Amino acid sequence: MLKLYYSANSCSLASHIALEEAGADYEAVRLDFAEEDQKADAYLAINPKARVPSLVTDRGVLSETPALLLYIAQCHPNAALAPLDDPFALAQAQAFNNYLCSSAHVAHAHLRRGHRWADDEAAIAAMAAKVPQSVGECFDLINGTMIKGPWVLGDQYSICDPYLFTLTGWLPGDGIDRADLPNVDAHYQRMSERAAVQKVVAIHAGQ
Amino acid sequence: MLKLYYSANSCSLASHIALEEAGADYEAVRLDFAEEDQKADAYLAINPKARVPSLVTDRGVLSETPALLLYIAQCHPNAALAPLDDPFALAQAQAFNNYLCSSAHVAHAHLRRGHRWADDEAAIAAMAAKVPQSVGECFDLINGTMIKGPWVLGDQYSICDPYLFTLTGWLPGDGIDRADLPNVDAHYQRMSERAAVQKVVAIHAGQ
Repeated sequence: MLKLYYSANSCSLASHIALEEAGADYEAVRLDFAEEDQKADAYLAINPKARVPSLVTDRGVLSETPALLLYIAQCHPNAALAPLDDPFALAQAQAFNNYLCSSAHVAHAHLRRGHRWADDEAAIAAMAAKVPQSVGECFDLINGTMIKGPWVLGDQYSICDPYLFTLTGWLPGDGIDRADLPNVDAHYQRMSERAAVQKVVAIHAGQ
Repeated sequence: MLKLYYSANSCSLASHIALEEAGADYEAVRLDFAEEDQKADAYLAINPKARVPSLVTDRGVLSETPALLLYIAQCHPNAALAPLDDPFALAQAQAFNNYLCSSAHVAHAHLRRGHRWADDEAAIAAMAAKVPQSVGECFDLINGTMIKGPWVLGDQYSICDPYLFTLTGWLPGDGIDRADLPNVDAHYQRMSERAAVQKVVAIHAGQ
């Protein structure tokens, strides 16, 4: 059985939804970042990066959201969560997910994780101040050029969708109004109607 | 034929080396970032993110290094550049490459691309000042926990190796001495002995 370590509404939400969509046999273990659970020795032995998600498999531990999403799709081919037999289409999916992890998520992280990249309090505040612009530029690209509709890759729901849904959920905190991003907004609402999404969102909300 | 858009010694070096290792039929097109070639309309039509690498295929354009690397491996299976038939091993490879793009490269980018995340000059200087520490922490993890040796994934050379080689090449500019990272240093030297690496490094150096 797979075991997913997650923290509420972090990027681990994407893998959590994907496991649910895949019908995977899994257990989800919650970490409380406010209590710094991710820095406890027991967790560092699982993931020395002190981050989520971590996916414990019978062969070892995996980390990094795009890697987990592809792994979940490959292990549950009947769920058809990625274009596994088409290298070009798969590369498009991976490119989208990589843009989320290396650009959009990174821009967002400057809101509350500025200490990763500067020690000076004024610098950390300056980073937080630019988040509406930097995340906004990422989402303008996503909204304008990346979502094929109705799902990210077009007609086929995929591992790109829960990942985009996760980062879209952060936009209010980033000072961005989803209503200004019609394709992103429609995608978010479409996602919110899925049973798997509703189930996992409720778990993350502690319901 | 594939067409790779690159800039000298950027992260596009990784895909360039992978194409060469794969024996791919490709053309490489150099962009001069000092001339802001990446912001020209003609290039933005190829890649609206104004970044490299971009890989033009007969089905369209791909971007994002981890996506390109997997695509190159999948299209040239005889080169055996990724564990394509083993989802767990492939996820380990993808996790490594995703760590490079979303953590190590991002830490490095705060040296000269701080304007992405703050407008204030003092804040940008504070980010640059922390690069030796933030990149250093990433490479301590890479050195201590990620390189199986002799290659990143162990005995099998893969798409992880040119990517690590690329970021290792940035360490002197980041204020980090490779000699303090023995596994990383040995990997860099091993890579430097490969014919494909020597060929592409010379191209990037303008030789």
